[in-house]
Amino acid sequence: GLDRIINSDPVAITFFIGYMAMFASSVFFFVERGSVDGKWKLSLLVSALITGIAAVHYYYMRDFYLQTGSSPTAFRYVDWTLTVPLMCVEFYLLTKPFGAKGGTLFKLIVASLVMLVTGYIGETSGIDSNIMWGIISTLGYLYIVYEVFAGDVAKLAHGSNSPALGNAMFLLKIFITLGWSIYPIGYMVLPGNLLSGAFEVSSIDLFYNLADAINKIGFGLVIYSVAIAESTKSK
Amino acid sequence: GLDRIINSDPVAITFFIGYMAMFASSVFFFVERGSVDGKWKLSLLVSALITGIAAVHYYYMRDFYLQTGSSPTAFRYVDWTLTVPLMCVEFYLLTKPFGAKGGTLFKLIVASLVMLVTGYIGETSGIDSNIMWGIISTLGYLYIVYEVFAGDVAKLAHGSNSPALGNAMFLLKIFITLGWSIYPIGYMVLPGNLLSGAFEVSSIDLFYNLADAINKIGFGLVIYSVAIAESTKSK
Ligand SMILES: CC1=C(/C=C/C(C)=C/C=C/C(C)=C/C=O)C(C)(C)CCC1
Ligand SMILES: CC1=C(/C=C/C(C)=C/C=C/C(C)=C/C=O)C(C)(C)CCC1
Repeated sequence: GLDRIINSDPVAITFFIGYMAMFASSVFFFVERGSVDGKWKLSLLVSALITGIAAVHYYYMRDFYLQTGSSPTAFRYVDWTLTVPLMCVEFYLLTKPFGAKGGTLFKLIVASLVMLVTGYIGETSGIDSNIMWGIISTLGYLYIVYEVFAGDVAKLAHGSNSPALGNAMFLLKIFITLGWSIYPIGYMVLPGNLLSGAFEVSSIDLFYNLADAINKIGFGLVIYSVAIAESTKSK
Repeated sequence: GLDRIINSDPVAITFFIGYMAMFASSVFFFVERGSVDGKWKLSLLVSALITGIAAVHYYYMRDFYLQTGSSPTAFRYVDWTLTVPLMCVEFYLLTKPFGAKGGTLFKLIVASLVMLVTGYIGETSGIDSNIMWGIISTLGYLYIVYEVFAGDVAKLAHGSNSPALGNAMFLLKIFITLGWSIYPIGYMVLPGNLLSGAFEVSSIDLFYNLADAINKIGFGLVIYSVAIAESTKSK
């Protein structure tokens, strides 16, 4: 209830900020879809869907947290099950001009689902086995990192003649390695895991909310700025 | 209530994922309708309506399930009564360039209504007669399969000069035979039916939710990719 607001519970406050940030970003990407050229419209629509889906789930999560005071784990993973594959679609759309293939998208989606399913089992399985599941989940994550740095996606990264696109490819790597790594760090505050004790359990949601803002909104804005740069160029 | 979320009830979770996936897909098809050529706009609108109607029913079903813990059978059939005929319209629009006739559409809709009415009687009639009604319902389903493989629809499938359309016709057959067959498999987990014991009763909704995602969203995306392929070709 409201007492968490009255006592300025930081987790509750970030759920409020997160909800509104997602909602506003979704409106922004929907509207600005009209200002970019042809093929960029689809990328902006995907960004709008990612943040729009997240807005709905932040609404649930905020409510759940206010009512129970505990982590809305199920809603978090419901959200990721939809938004992480859409993020992979976003990467695919970005690298398509370099020649990305549907098969690579498929591999990324499978790896991310492995990462999420095992992560969810880990978060709900308790103190004895969350390290083990976290490691398995991290393998899925590392596979994605591998694809971007040395695998299919990396092979494409050469041969662009657009500085804006080249720059976006560089930022994509930063987001995958640094932005996405906030999630496993958050996971480690679970009881029995590596950072438990260093942080309170409830700070898992602080990590996840921060990471979501960076990766969903931040990466969407990167795509947006490339789209704008490429659209004014072609005029 | 919320306890089903806290305990990560898989049926509840798939209702949440299903709701949001349908909603997001509906927005996607509505918006992308603007990016495809003339005659494809209608197909994308139908896909948007199918997933939009389903989003509303998933919202009801999710709520019903959270409150009662049992299968929202009536809502399920309310949804199918509207979306299955619309799927038939979708097939009709796809095969129209090959010369599909309104009469064939009518036959498909009648067969699907027979399938649904008898299926509903079977699901609500209890342990003694659900096999019998399931068989009658399956006859309706098999008639649709027959039309697509050997009847009116099959006769049209030759004589396309567009690989994208030919490919879509092939995928249509896969969806009708494999995608749609998940529903009768789900039905068989009812008490007294062939798979009861092998799965819990509540897994009927897991089957139906999975099948709905594949057939409503997946087939919509097939149509979308044909529409995009055909639209860029004509430019
Ligand atoms: C590695 C790892 C994890 C990674 C989660 C990630 C990387 C989530 C990314 C979410 C995104 C990018 C959402 C954007 O829309 C888990 C599941 C916490 C479990 C512990 C190990
Ligand atoms: C054969 C059969 C069934 C088939 C159901 C089907 C095939 C439903 C398709 C729904 C679709 C495609 C919805 C998409 O929007 C029932 C009624 C479960 C009853 C048991 C026998």
